[in-house]
Amino acid sequence: MRIGFIGLGIMGRPMAGHLLRAGFPLTVWNRTPGKTDELIRAGARAAKSPAALAAESDVVMTIVTDGPDVEEVLFAPRGVVEGFAESGRLSRRGGQAGAGERGVDGAGRPVVIDLSTVSPRTARRIATRLAQDGLDFLDAPVTGGDVGAQNATLTIMVGGEAAVFERCRGPLSAMGRKIVHVGPNGAGQMVKACNQILCAVNMIAVCESLSLARRTGLDVNAMLDVVTSGAGGSWALEHLGRKIVAGDLRPAFMVRLIQKDLRAVMEAAEEARLPLPGTALAIQLFRAVEAGGGDALGTQAMIQAYERMAGES
Amino acid sequence: MRIGFIGLGIMGRPMAGHLLRAGFPLTVWNRTPGKTDELIRAGARAAKSPAALAAESDVVMTIVTDGPDVEEVLFAPRGVVEGFAESGRLSRRGGQAGAGERGVDGAGRPVVIDLSTVSPRTARRIATRLAQDGLDFLDAPVTGGDVGAQNATLTIMVGGEAAVFERCRGPLSAMGRKIVHVGPNGAGQMVKACNQILCAVNMIAVCESLSLARRTGLDVNAMLDVVTSGAGGSWALEHLGRKIVAGDLRPAFMVRLIQKDLRAVMEAAEEARLPLPGTALAIQLFRAVEAGGGDALGTQAMIQAYERMAGES
Repeated sequence: MRIGFIGLGIMGRPMAGHLLRAGFPLTVWNRTPGKTDELIRAGARAAKSPAALAAESDVVMTIVTDGPDVEEVLFAPRGVVEGFAESGRLSRRGGQAGAGERGVDGAGRPVVIDLSTVSPRTARRIATRLAQDGLDFLDAPVTGGDVGAQNATLTIMVGGEAAVFERCRGPLSAMGRKIVHVGPNGAGQMVKACNQILCAVNMIAVCESLSLARRTGLDVNAMLDVVTSGAGGSWALEHLGRKIVAGDLRPAFMVRLIQKDLRAVMEAAEEARLPLPGTALAIQLFRAVEAGGGDALGTQAMIQAYERMAGES
Repeated sequence: MRIGFIGLGIMGRPMAGHLLRAGFPLTVWNRTPGKTDELIRAGARAAKSPAALAAESDVVMTIVTDGPDVEEVLFAPRGVVEGFAESGRLSRRGGQAGAGERGVDGAGRPVVIDLSTVSPRTARRIATRLAQDGLDFLDAPVTGGDVGAQNATLTIMVGGEAAVFERCRGPLSAMGRKIVHVGPNGAGQMVKACNQILCAVNMIAVCESLSLARRTGLDVNAMLDVVTSGAGGSWALEHLGRKIVAGDLRPAFMVRLIQKDLRAVMEAAEEARLPLPGTALAIQLFRAVEAGGGDALGTQAMIQAYERMAGES
């Protein structure tokens, strides 16, 4: 199974490396060409465009910033779809017909897997466009951060047809530890949206408890020690609460990236006519951090919004 | 060390039982007399009043609903202080003098330990009044719920003088697994306040992620399976998220009790001039549950507020 990999940022580069080490023939492309050097030394081929990459791939994976970036590498001139078309592997008559032509399970039919976090609506729109071109699609956002990408311990939540998921389980498993098929196209992104709600609102809890503790002169480490193991415990408290106490606001996950993801959450919630007041509050608090220039800090920088509200900075 | 135990509710009864089994001579009192029967059969003595209980105790423990209830059993006629006074063990000249009279470490001097959750301000006020009567005080709220009380696995966060804490470590250890001295009087309640902020706001996160999942037709169990182990994970998600999915709103901790605790949080935050918008939102959402008659449901009933906002019930 030949793989084309587009997007070699903090996440993509180590993920592509795992595919190479797992033995998959790998072609890479990145908007900024220099980022391919390390992988080329390790055995990957570099393509001149997403189209050239697709021409020599069975599965194309993308991990770029946002929905418009994904759609550009797929659908723009010299994009992935054009490459598949030139190599004569598209049957532009919709998903079912294409699958029929190439066998019951669609084996051999090209697949696009988007590992970026985009809105569920964008994921469904991409799936529909690709199906019209005779291409299968999986929306497969990841969680676990740069450390998870480096150690191949990511969680990958996958939306799409079950048969397509099964065909792609091998390369996905090379990059993560927990690979879960959660439903049809868009469902992967919807589960990621649920995850980002939890990350954002749990951070409010962490910041408010730490603010009260600091403001009233408590020993914050004693407080954290007591509450972390109990009914108030969370991953955010355990990992990011300690960073706040240590004054470490360096990013594991940047404020501007969670804001992008929360916009996708709010788009999905608006479509579903669902009020999410806690998530809305988190967005406003992160906006206060952005207003202070903290876009590139980690999400634990939400504490700055509280410090400012309390007149402490 | 003879112990008097006041308040034999869902929490107090099993806690008093552990003291008895650990070998401490135990006298009990409860506003509703019938609740003492089981402990008397197990070897406890019943007192006719808090005063009579204090007269035959070295340490008096209270676990009642709220601050006014604590102050009544301590300071009202036939209350604990009157009982200590009648037994001739008070030196009404303030803490230091009392301690001096009975040895450097205050050994033998009566102690009151309040295990209820009250506001930090109330705890400090009680400590001051008791000190004027020559009594030591520990504010020692617990967390871990009725299951923790039954299995002696509670976490107990203790505020007060270190020497008093050390004298009382034995009986406290009989009731819990994690017993932590967190600072001077009031600090135990302040740590509990931090814990309740986390419980309340983490529940917002749980309800918003589950609401989005259900509303958009996701497989909620698949969603929970994916997100619980990751950066969105929390005790609330793992334990109460599952209950929401199963439609189980029975109380492990009642809405009306977390509301009482959150009033204490907001009193402390107001004193500290600290805005807590997330906690304020949680209070409003729990209020919507109360408005629907859900006072005695578990805190996971916050989901009802979301169902109503979304026009689902």
